[in-house]
Amino acid sequence: MIVQKTRRITGMTLPRTDQMQLDQFYEQMEHAASKEIGYPVAFDFDYSALAPFLSFSLNNAGDPFMPMTYLLNSHEFEREVVSFYAQLTRAPTDQWWGYITNGSTEGNLYGLYLARELLPEGIVYFSQDSHYSVGKNLHFLNMRHIMIRSTPNGEIDYDDLRETLRIRRDAPPIIFANVGTTMKEARDDIGRIRSILDDLAIESRYIHCDAALSGGYAAFLEPPPAWDFADGADSIAISGHKFLGSPIPCGIVLARQAHVDRIGHSVAYIGSIDTTISGSRNGFTPLILWYAIRSLGLEGMRDRAKKSLAMAAYAEKMFKQAGIEAWRNPQALTVVFPEPPGEVREKWQLASANGYSHVICMPHVRREQIDELISDIRQAGGGCA
Amino acid sequence: MIVQKTRRITGMTLPRTDQMQLDQFYEQMEHAASKEIGYPVAFDFDYSALAPFLSFSLNNAGDPFMPMTYLLNSHEFEREVVSFYAQLTRAPTDQWWGYITNGSTEGNLYGLYLARELLPEGIVYFSQDSHYSVGKNLHFLNMRHIMIRSTPNGEIDYDDLRETLRIRRDAPPIIFANVGTTMKEARDDIGRIRSILDDLAIESRYIHCDAALSGGYAAFLEPPPAWDFADGADSIAISGHKFLGSPIPCGIVLARQAHVDRIGHSVAYIGSIDTTISGSRNGFTPLILWYAIRSLGLEGMRDRAKKSLAMAAYAEKMFKQAGIEAWRNPQALTVVFPEPPGEVREKWQLASANGYSHVICMPHVRREQIDELISDIRQAGGGCA
Repeated sequence: MIVQKTRRITGMTLPRTDQMQLDQFYEQMEHAASKEIGYPVAFDFDYSALAPFLSFSLNNAGDPFMPMTYLLNSHEFEREVVSFYAQLTRAPTDQWWGYITNGSTEGNLYGLYLARELLPEGIVYFSQDSHYSVGKNLHFLNMRHIMIRSTPNGEIDYDDLRETLRIRRDAPPIIFANVGTTMKEARDDIGRIRSILDDLAIESRYIHCDAALSGGYAAFLEPPPAWDFADGADSIAISGHKFLGSPIPCGIVLARQAHVDRIGHSVAYIGSIDTTISGSRNGFTPLILWYAIRSLGLEGMRDRAKKSLAMAAYAEKMFKQAGIEAWRNPQALTVVFPEPPGEVREKWQLASANGYSHVICMPHVRREQIDELISDIRQAGGGCA
Repeated sequence: MIVQKTRRITGMTLPRTDQMQLDQFYEQMEHAASKEIGYPVAFDFDYSALAPFLSFSLNNAGDPFMPMTYLLNSHEFEREVVSFYAQLTRAPTDQWWGYITNGSTEGNLYGLYLARELLPEGIVYFSQDSHYSVGKNLHFLNMRHIMIRSTPNGEIDYDDLRETLRIRRDAPPIIFANVGTTMKEARDDIGRIRSILDDLAIESRYIHCDAALSGGYAAFLEPPPAWDFADGADSIAISGHKFLGSPIPCGIVLARQAHVDRIGHSVAYIGSIDTTISGSRNGFTPLILWYAIRSLGLEGMRDRAKKSLAMAAYAEKMFKQAGIEAWRNPQALTVVFPEPPGEVREKWQLASANGYSHVICMPHVRREQIDELISDIRQAGGGCA
């Protein structure tokens, strides 16, 4: 690429001590990255080819499918990315809409916002294993809600859901389904949830699928979980920086066109044709996601999913061989085990809740890391619940 | 910087036609950037020294002042940036809190959210020249609101505000002030607004300052407008990608600590200690803003403001000399003039509303661009209202 510097550039040089702080931070990050196996973020990417675009002030404000006066936007790439995910989530042809978000909290907020506009009297149902941001979003949107029990594997308790729905058939339900949960990667079965709603003859309803974690690879699982539009979802949020990998948090949100049109009306009423949540929008992350999708291809992505599953199976096996009570949900990349001592959790950046921790076998995780973690746990005397 | 590739990297090469698409897009952006003088985004930056950090999955989830298990965060830089802006906005020492947002729509949403939690029965007052996202945010948060007339220069009509407040003294007012407005860079005077509230003996109140545009340089104007915490603001949103310049939209939101503590309680109640709006948060933009602040320094920023003001004065003068009815608000970088014909608006990416357009003399704008624009307008036969 030829850099044509026709623009005025202000000389930007850091004072020496600041440059040292930055260099030190870089080394710190290199070290931290080599020990990161506890969070659902892939690290195996190389987007250096996109660095020249950091010299532009890209901005994707507004609807990616609408023209924009400000020409420094990557709407063209954003449309390709959301179209790719519309196919992956089996969205009804030409009957969907979507955009690239700053992450799945925004995607989930968007789904709940659509649901609130469609069903103002609705009650949101979500399992106790849902991400903490769900409560935050509901508070924000002022929506009535009921938390449903989870089963020990982290899935929503369908019996509790059915019973709770049964006694509140006067208020339209808005189901917030997890695919999968933060700690155990449990996947709420949208097909089963739909059956319950059908059984109870509840026709006015909305299902949002929080596929922040599993949405990046759910379509490549065999068999795939019941999670997408064909399975009955009304909107889906997927993270871009988790399985696919991105230096900047981002996500994709998709919804049935008819729902978004309803929002479009109410927003037009208040004088805006912007149906997204943000104002100015990141134009760099669409390039990142596009680059990943185009360079990996469908087969590359499928292959990544397969390798990650194999790594999770390896981890589970090795944990067990070492006498550590580990387990994982079917086709999950997350291996759950009893919370190890503090120094091990800190070294490997392991999140903990209710006495257990997890490793998440994202595509960058290597066998040596799993082996070293297990050896660390044994040396520290951990392993049992 | 030494790149230590101890991590697994997936081979990522674009198919040839995709690489061609990307190259073509780069050239398109170079061209578009050379003709961009219509939006409030600075282009004169060079953050290439930060490109190596694109190889990490940085994530600043949660409160930047709290520890984080995930070590790949730039909270340390984020704290420095928000502290810098706390000083610039004369926040009360140790009595403020803030974080780096994805842009001022999020910052404004945050301010309004705080206001709603503090004054649930409050009514939001904002001028008709406010950014369209304000309506969107209010709808989102389900807040009562009243639009106030603007004066011809774009400022809130203080008489209309006083009259409207006077007859609704039973509901606590939440003032959404613009510093400055999108189209005319008019600045609502927070001092004057405060006097009106004092006069009416309204003690229960909240003032949010949308300083998306002018917040980047307001502190350097002589005299500065009445816009900051010392002037009476309860929260302030400033854009990072506007005057300072950033390849990725971002912003700073600051609020009085006591207000955030109130939010903290209600969020803790719903099971979360995260007081930000997003979940996963961009860890790259804090580096960008930090880099800009540290390399420019206070004096460099003051100098940028001075040069931009001089360019705006030049543009206003040249427009007038050419017989075009241009004008600008006191100490504004925005020069307003009658909407030119379509081909001129497209070439220079000029936003238009109600029959007028504007150029915004951000630090990258050069005299030759102004001269060329004026010559284009004259050739196209425009210039009069």
